[in-house]
Order: sequence, then structure tokens, then C-alpha cells
Amino acid sequence: MSVATQSHPALRWDGRRLEVLDQTLLPGTEAWLSLSGADDTAEAIRRLAVRGAPLIGVAAAYGLAMEVARQPGLGALEHGWEVLRDARPTAVNLAYAVDRVRAAALAAGPTTIAAAARAEAQRIHAEEDAASSAIAEHGASLLAGARRVATHCNAGALAAGGSGTALAVIFELHARGPLRVLAGETRPLLQGARLTVWELARAGVEHELVVDGAMAGLIARGEVDAVIVGCDRVAANGDTANKVGTYGLALAARAAGIPFVVAGPTSTIDAELPDGGGIAIEERDAAEVRSFGAAASTLPDTPVRNPAFDVTPASLISALVTERGVAQPVDTASVAALLQ
Amino acid sequence: MSVATQSHPALRWDGRRLEVLDQTLLPGTEAWLSLSGADDTAEAIRRLAVRGAPLIGVAAAYGLAMEVARQPGLGALEHGWEVLRDARPTAVNLAYAVDRVRAAALAAGPTTIAAAARAEAQRIHAEEDAASSAIAEHGASLLAGARRVATHCNAGALAAGGSGTALAVIFELHARGPLRVLAGETRPLLQGARLTVWELARAGVEHELVVDGAMAGLIARGEVDAVIVGCDRVAANGDTANKVGTYGLALAARAAGIPFVVAGPTSTIDAELPDGGGIAIEERDAAEVRSFGAAASTLPDTPVRNPAFDVTPASLISALVTERGVAQPVDTASVAALLQ
Repeated sequence: MSVATQSHPALRWDGRRLEVLDQTLLPGTEAWLSLSGADDTAEAIRRLAVRGAPLIGVAAAYGLAMEVARQPGLGALEHGWEVLRDARPTAVNLAYAVDRVRAAALAAGPTTIAAAARAEAQRIHAEEDAASSAIAEHGASLLAGARRVATHCNAGALAAGGSGTALAVIFELHARGPLRVLAGETRPLLQGARLTVWELARAGVEHELVVDGAMAGLIARGEVDAVIVGCDRVAANGDTANKVGTYGLALAARAAGIPFVVAGPTSTIDAELPDGGGIAIEERDAAEVRSFGAAASTLPDTPVRNPAFDVTPASLISALVTERGVAQPVDTASVAALLQ
Repeated sequence: MSVATQSHPALRWDGRRLEVLDQTLLPGTEAWLSLSGADDTAEAIRRLAVRGAPLIGVAAAYGLAMEVARQPGLGALEHGWEVLRDARPTAVNLAYAVDRVRAAALAAGPTTIAAAARAEAQRIHAEEDAASSAIAEHGASLLAGARRVATHCNAGALAAGGSGTALAVIFELHARGPLRVLAGETRPLLQGARLTVWELARAGVEHELVVDGAMAGLIARGEVDAVIVGCDRVAANGDTANKVGTYGLALAARAAGIPFVVAGPTSTIDAELPDGGGIAIEERDAAEVRSFGAAASTLPDTPVRNPAFDVTPASLISALVTERGVAQPVDTASVAALLQ
């Protein structure tokens, strides 16, 4: 892959300008935003036109490189770095990516600052792409023989610099043989119905959409060979925070005796955190639950609990698939081995 | 309670005319439909203005009684019986109720046919109401001490001739002490968000709405003392079919070590069925999953699996609460004892 002319389902880089797919309009409309610097890239990240921690990092790296190319100097570098770093303060990959581009630019001379920033952004993108590919290979080998796979939320190209994490594995399984995917719709924000289904349809992978509550029963009826999901944060012992609904799928997989696999880059592992008990669970706005796009679903003042994530204990996770290999069983020792 | 002037959240009977709350418009609009005979009552049942198997039975009984009162003779009786019995062929309570009203009318003389039909309809309603009250008492005694209860779908007055099944227990717990309810929204048709929340708000029960996928994680975090749900069909060994999402809650309750309780009238028990493996699972229309009211949630042609029910094995059910008492543990012997 040449990242200088990288084509990606959600990101296009021609060596000079960045285009991103506006994910807020999916699946109804596929509209591309043309970006030219730090400010408009930060705005696209802020309003979730670009989402998914690894993908945000890649977009921000290109945003900073474009800013420096436009005005090759320290002023533009510092301005771009700040505005992009603050676009979504909680996304670790965002800070990681713009810090790297800034460091590379600072290390270059005045005449090569733009080229150095661009090269570093492309390097980050290439690394992200390689991580997706490695995860795909490791995961597909692990799940060889699985023909009916369930997933939840969106862990595909719309969330990563490459082909994704859990969906990357699914795409590779599809390349190797017949495959059918059950995709959970993922209320409240419907990343499964809006984004995963769009990716699967685009890739020609046979799939069916189900409401989140229906998945456990279908697993119990023997309709699923394996469950694979992405992850938002993995503790040192392998306890994994991911989109709400993930823990219930892990329980159903265990009850049915099928593998429950988590896929993600090692950058998602928080080695400082001994176990999942320390993971703070973000509570999001009640409006997400009270409605569905423009359609109200309940009384306007209904009290709501809206945790964004749940924590699946490592004991329910059959394997953790990363770009560096697979932890199996998942425990403190096997997770630490991935990080060495 | 005098059923001759029965007031009910979803049904009003003044001894002559029936009014039903149009549940398709909840929770946004509370509109009452005035019904006068078999044809308009059947139409209200067909388009789900009245729903919930026990409630449908009561409405149909009154519909047939009104038809006979208008034209006291065998022609009206047979016409009304047929049109109501066919309104929703799969609802067992519907056939049960109109069969009873017809038999009572046939046993009466020509001058008393209308009075006999009306009396039988009122008797059915009174029995339904009494069943709800008994379930409420048994369930609240069983769950004494539970202060944070989770439920799924709608098993309240909007589904029964009395105060409901699972929600009847919740109302009684609320009457006895402080209580907080977590209500699952219940995709795809949102009976939790639309109907259960409406009933809880109306009764002044403290509650919070959650998406279905979030419930297991909240149970794991220790935020729920007990789970209680209704049932659509219970096999002889206690295996229970109920709205999709129920089985996942049972797994989460078991993992957390809290009670998982099923509530329903003994008429829901299918003694002919040895276990849940024989329960046919209805697959409903894909459009329910592809949208949310008027809002599309995915690509228009997305393939869908839409099972309406899942089956929870008796081994995961802590207790089965009926109007005749409680089966605990739930097995073939304890279920059979309820039916003797």
C-alpha cells in the first residue's frame, strides 16, 4: 500500500489534501468533506463526521501536516497542534498522533518542516493500516472454521486507519471462505445499523441486522459460531470496556460454549490499570435514549440511565487479538507478554 | 371492584359500551376509542390499539356482549364470535374469552341472551383483575426487600385486564416501600419506552429508562436487586418464552446472583409442551428493525432477523409467580402443582 495515495472507506489522502466521509450522514448519504488544514479537520472531528479513536488520530495527523504545508513555520505548527489536540480531549490516539507529527516537524529544519510533518502523518497512517492487517490475519487464523459470526457496534474501517479491528477479522474470514455475520444494531446511537451494515454491504459480506436484545437468544439457538467485538479500553488483566451490550454477548457466548473474542491494537491496553473495576464508565446524554434521530421514543421528561460502555471480565474473553499476536487465555501474564 | 363500572388504564366499561385507550398513540397521545360491537372491537384488536393477550381477551368478550345486546339473537352471536375470534388468531386468550361468552349466550334463553353474554364478559374481566391482584401479592411477598428492580417489555395494565403481571408486582412493591425501577426500552417496538414508562410515570413509581444492551452491565455493577418479567408461553418444565432480551437478562441476573422472576397467569402455562425446545419462535417483519417509528435506522434493503421472543430455560428462573401461588424452584413438579 502506498499511503501517499491511500484510498480508505472513510479517508482519502492524495499527498496534499484530505477528504473524509461524513459519518453523521451514513448510511443514507455518502458525502465527502474536503479538508485543508487544522481548523476544518478539528471541526470535522468535533462534530463526529470522523469518529473511532484510531481514525481520529490519522485524520488529525493529516490535518496538522496540511496546516504546516500551508504556512511552513512554527506558528502554524503550534496553532494546528493545539486546535487538533483539543478537538476531543478524551481520545488518546488524537493526542498521540499530533504529538508525533509536531515532534517530527520540530526536529526538521525550516525548509523541510512541511515534508517532515507530511511524512510522519503518512507513517502513522501506514502503522494504523498495518495494525488492522495484522489483527485481521491473527483473528482469522484463530477463528478458522467459524462461518457464522456475531458482532456489536462498529469496529471497522469507519473507526480505524486500516480495515478496522473486529470487522477486519470478519473481512479476512470472508476472504478465506463463506461467512455470514449477525450485526447488533447498537442502541442508542446505532453504530451497528448505520455503520457496520454499511461496511458489510459494501464489502459484499452476507449479513443480517438484529436488535440488541435478540442476539443472546440467537446464540442460544446455535445460530452463531463465534462472537467478535472491538474494545475501548483493556485493563492489564484483560478486563475490557466496550460499547454497552458487549458484556451480555459475552455471557451468552459462554453459556453456548462458543468463543468470545476481543480485537484491538495494543495501544488500547491500559497497562496502568490492574483490572476493569478502575475503568470509569461515561454516562452520556439522556436525549440519545429518549429518541432515535428525530423520532421520540418515550415521554419527553423520562429519566434515563445512559452508560456508554460496559466491562466484560477477562474470564469471559476467549482471546484478545492484537497486531502483535493473540493473548489466550486472557490474563495479566498473557496481556503483559503482548506489550513486551 | 365492581366490573359493571370498571375503570382501567386501558379499558372502560360502563355496563353497555366499551372504551379502549389507543395504545398505538402512546405515550405521546392518550386517545380513547368508543366501541359499540364486534366489528369495531375486532378492528381495534387487529391494529394493536388494544394489545396484550389477557387484555385482548377482555376486550373481545365485551365486544361480543355488545354485539348481542344490539341484536339479541343467534345471527349476531355467530357473526360477532367469528369476527372477534379471527382478529388475531394466535392469541390464545382471545379464543378462550369469546368461546366462553358464546357458550354462556347459547345456554341462555332468547330473552336473556344479551344479559348472559354481558354477565360472562364481566366475569372474565373480574377473573383477570383478580389474577393480577393475586400475582401482585404473591410477587411482592416473594421480593420483599427488593428496592431496585429491573423489567423488560410491558407486562402492566396495558397488557392485562387488571394491573398486569410483572408490573402488578412492581406496583405492589411500590405500595409497600421505596422502589426504583429500571425499564428496558425493548426494541424493536419499544413497549418499555412507550408503555411501561407511561404506566410507571402515571403510578408515581420512580424509574429510569435504559437501552436493552445496557441492562446487563448495570446488573453486573450491583445496581439491581431483582429482575421481574412477564411471559408469553411457559412450558410444563418452566422454560419460558418472552420478548427478545429476556434471556440475556436472566443470564446477567444469574451471573450477579440476584433473583430472576417470571410472573403470569396460569393460563399462560402450556402443559402440553414438555419444554421450551418446542416453542415456535415468531419471526416478525424486517421493517420493525429497519426503522424506529418513521425514522429509518439502516439501509432500506438490509437483511434482518427479527425473532419476537426468546426462551429462558427454567434453570435460570428463580421463581414463577402466578395467581395460584409461586413455583420455586421452577421445574416440572412445581409447575404441575400450580395447575392442580
